[in-house]
Amino acid sequence: MSKPLNVAIAGLGTIGGGTFKLLTEQAEIIERRTGRAVRLAAVADPDASKMTDAEAGGVRCFDDALPMAADDGVDVVVELIGGSGGIAKKLCETAIANSKHVVTANKAMVAHHGTQLAKAAEDQGVSFNYEAAVAGGIPIIKSLREGLAGNNIGRVYGILNGTCNFILSAMSEQGREFEDVLKECQELGYAEADPSFDIDGIDTAHKLAILASVSFGCEINFDAVYTEGIRHVSPMDMQFAAELGYRIKLLGTASVSERGLEQRVHPCMVPETAPIAHVAGSLNAVVADGDFVDTIVQEGHGAGAGPTASAVCADIIDIARGLKVPTFGVPVGDLKTIAPLPMQRHVGAYYIRLMVVDKPGVFADIAGALQKHAVSMESVIQRTRNPGEAVPVVMTTHETEEASMVEALKEIAVVGAVVEEPRMIRIESL
Amino acid sequence: MSKPLNVAIAGLGTIGGGTFKLLTEQAEIIERRTGRAVRLAAVADPDASKMTDAEAGGVRCFDDALPMAADDGVDVVVELIGGSGGIAKKLCETAIANSKHVVTANKAMVAHHGTQLAKAAEDQGVSFNYEAAVAGGIPIIKSLREGLAGNNIGRVYGILNGTCNFILSAMSEQGREFEDVLKECQELGYAEADPSFDIDGIDTAHKLAILASVSFGCEINFDAVYTEGIRHVSPMDMQFAAELGYRIKLLGTASVSERGLEQRVHPCMVPETAPIAHVAGSLNAVVADGDFVDTIVQEGHGAGAGPTASAVCADIIDIARGLKVPTFGVPVGDLKTIAPLPMQRHVGAYYIRLMVVDKPGVFADIAGALQKHAVSMESVIQRTRNPGEAVPVVMTTHETEEASMVEALKEIAVVGAVVEEPRMIRIESL
Repeated sequence: MSKPLNVAIAGLGTIGGGTFKLLTEQAEIIERRTGRAVRLAAVADPDASKMTDAEAGGVRCFDDALPMAADDGVDVVVELIGGSGGIAKKLCETAIANSKHVVTANKAMVAHHGTQLAKAAEDQGVSFNYEAAVAGGIPIIKSLREGLAGNNIGRVYGILNGTCNFILSAMSEQGREFEDVLKECQELGYAEADPSFDIDGIDTAHKLAILASVSFGCEINFDAVYTEGIRHVSPMDMQFAAELGYRIKLLGTASVSERGLEQRVHPCMVPETAPIAHVAGSLNAVVADGDFVDTIVQEGHGAGAGPTASAVCADIIDIARGLKVPTFGVPVGDLKTIAPLPMQRHVGAYYIRLMVVDKPGVFADIAGALQKHAVSMESVIQRTRNPGEAVPVVMTTHETEEASMVEALKEIAVVGAVVEEPRMIRIESL
Repeated sequence: MSKPLNVAIAGLGTIGGGTFKLLTEQAEIIERRTGRAVRLAAVADPDASKMTDAEAGGVRCFDDALPMAADDGVDVVVELIGGSGGIAKKLCETAIANSKHVVTANKAMVAHHGTQLAKAAEDQGVSFNYEAAVAGGIPIIKSLREGLAGNNIGRVYGILNGTCNFILSAMSEQGREFEDVLKECQELGYAEADPSFDIDGIDTAHKLAILASVSFGCEINFDAVYTEGIRHVSPMDMQFAAELGYRIKLLGTASVSERGLEQRVHPCMVPETAPIAHVAGSLNAVVADGDFVDTIVQEGHGAGAGPTASAVCADIIDIARGLKVPTFGVPVGDLKTIAPLPMQRHVGAYYIRLMVVDKPGVFADIAGALQKHAVSMESVIQRTRNPGEAVPVVMTTHETEEASMVEALKEIAVVGAVVEEPRMIRIESL
C-alpha cells in the first residue's frame, strides 16, 4: 500500500462542496481503486463559514489559498476558484512551482493559459488535469486523449453549455421567447444575473478551444474561435426549423483540414435525425469523428455539484494511481500551431429568414443579390401574402462560403420591401 | 525517449487486419503521443496468405501463435483469435507467464476466464486489457474504470450487439418479419451463418458480465446472466410498442442493490424519449448511472475493423504510456462476490399480447389469472372484435415480480379462447 495522497481544495463553492462530499463519502472505495488513501488534507476559502464542516472533520483550513499551494503537507491542489487569470492562475503556478499536481475545473483559465500551465507542469514532472473544465461529468478529455489515442480526429463538436441548451429546449418545446425563458432561468438560479458568458457563447468557446487542442494536438487558440450566442434565436425560427426537419442547438464545432483549423460557436440547425438533436434540457453532449473509430457520442450532465465533482475526482484518482498523460495528448513542445481558418471562409448551407412586404420586383431583387454572390437556393417557404403586411420568407441555400452569404445578406437587407434585419442560421451537416 | 514497445498480433482476421493497418498508418502520431515507438514486431496466423503484407514489411511471421507469445522480442501480445477457451486462452496464459502484456478483443474469453487471467497478469505485474471486448470503439471500459472512478455505479445497461440492433431497427422501420431481415443480414455478411450467438443474446451476455464486473467491482459471473434473444419479437409487437410510446431494443442490463446482482439480457420496451431508443442500425450504446455523475451515455460503432482496432490500439497505447489500472477496477483479491438475484425475482412492468377469440367469459378468465397472482393491469388495447377470428389483446402491467407474471401467463395460456402462446416483453424504466 503506497503512502496517502494529500488533497487540498481551493474554493468551497458548489463544485468545491461537491468535491469535498465525494472525497469524504467515497473514501473507502477510492482507496480500494487506487491502492492508497486519498485524504482531504486542506481547504481554502475566504469565507470561513464555508469551512465549518472541514474544520469539524479535522481538515486544515486556509483563508488564503496561496500558502496552502506551497504547503509541505499537500500533494494535489484542486483549483475551484474560477476566473481566467488572477488568483486562480497564481494558485496553479504556485502549486506547480512547489511540485504539486494541479486539478482544475476552470475552463476560462485553461482556454487562456492552458499551454503555459501545461508547460510549467511538464517541466516540474507534475500533472495538470482539467477533465471537469469541459462537459462536466462526461469523461471526454480522457476519451479523446486516451480512449481514442489511436485516431486522427478530424472534427469534434458538442453542446457544451447547459444553460443555452435548456433555454433553446424550452423555447422549442413551449414556443416561448428567448427573453422570457432566460428570465425564468435567472429566477430559478439556472442562469447568472449577468448571463452573457453563457448565452453569448463565450463559455462554449472556452470549452471548444480546449477540445480542439486535445483532439488535434495543437496549441489552444481561444482568440481564433468565432463566437456568436443565442440572443437572436426566435420561436419563429424554431418553428421553421422543425418544418424543415431541423432543431436549433448552440454548438461548438472544431475541425481541421488542409484549409486550416476551424473553430466556431453559433446556433446551428441540426438534422432531427442526428443524436445531438435529442440532447434535451441542460444536458451536454460531445461528438468526435476519428479516422478509425468513426463517430463517438457522449452525453451527460455538463454542470452541477455531483457531475463536476465526479470529473474532478477522476482527475485526482488518476494522480493517485500514478497515471500520467501529456496534458493535451502530446508534450507541449510537440503541439502544432495550425493556422486558423477565418469564419468568412467557412463553407456550409444556410437558413435565411426575411420579413418581406409583398411589392412588385422584391423577389427579383432578393434572387439577384443571391445570384450576384453565387449563393444557390435549395428551398423556399412562403405561406401567406397579405398585401401591406410583412410576412416571413424562409430560404435554405446549398453550400456556400460565409463571405458570399454575408455580402448577399447585406444587399438583401437594403431591399426596400425587406422590413427587418435578415436572420441567418447556419445548417450543420452531421 | 524510452525504448520501443514491440507488439505481436495473434490472428489476422478482420480485427487483426484493422489493428495491423492502424499501427502501421498511425505509427508517427502514436510515437508522439506515447513518447516511444510502438513497433509491430510479429504476427501469427495459421493462414500464411494473411501475412504477406507483414512479411513484406519485415515483420516476423509465425504460423503458431504460442511460440510468438514466449518470444524475447515481444512486449505485448494482442489476442485476436477468438473463442472462449482453447488456443486463445492458452496464448494469453503463455504471454502472461512470459511477462508480456496482453490485449484482447475476446469477450467470450474474458466473460468465462477474465478473473483468472486478470489474477495471473496481476501476479506477473503485466496489463491484461480488453477495451475492444465490449462495445467496440466506444471507450467504455476506460470510462467506467477511470473516468467514473469516483462513483458508485448502481446500474449499467446498453445495446451491445450491432446485429440485433440492426435487425430490430429494420423490423421497426420497415415493418418486416424477423426471419426475413435475418436472412438479408446473412446475405450481406452482417450476420453469421450460425447467428445464434448474436440473436440469442449470448454475445450481449458476455459483454454485460464484463461491464457488471468493472462497474460494481465484483467477480465476473457470466453463468448468472439471464439470457433471452430476439427470435420471438414480431412486427405486430413493434407496432403496439410504437403506439404505447416505446421502441423494442435488445438490452443487457446489470444493476446492484441490497437484493443482489441482477444481470439480464432480453428484448425491452424502452420509452421513445430515452436516448437509447434512438440508437439506430448497427450502433452500440452504453449507459451508466453513477451516484455523483448521474447518467452518462456513450454511443458508437460496436464492431468492424476500424472501431475495434481503435479500441485495441488504445489499450496498446496505455501500455506504451505506462498507464496501469487494476483489470476490473480494483485488485482481483478485492473483487466482491455479489449474490445473483434470480430472474424470477426481477421487478418491472410488462407488455403482454394475447391472440384471443372472443368468447363469453374469456376476459373474466384472463383478469382472474392476473388477479390471482397480484398482477395489476395498467392499460389494455383491443381494437376489433371479429366473432370467431383471433384478435390481439395487448395489456401493460404495473410493476410486478417476474415469478408472478410467469405464473399468471401460464394460466392465461390454457384459457380456451387464447389461441397462441402469450407474448411477453419487459418494459424498462430508464
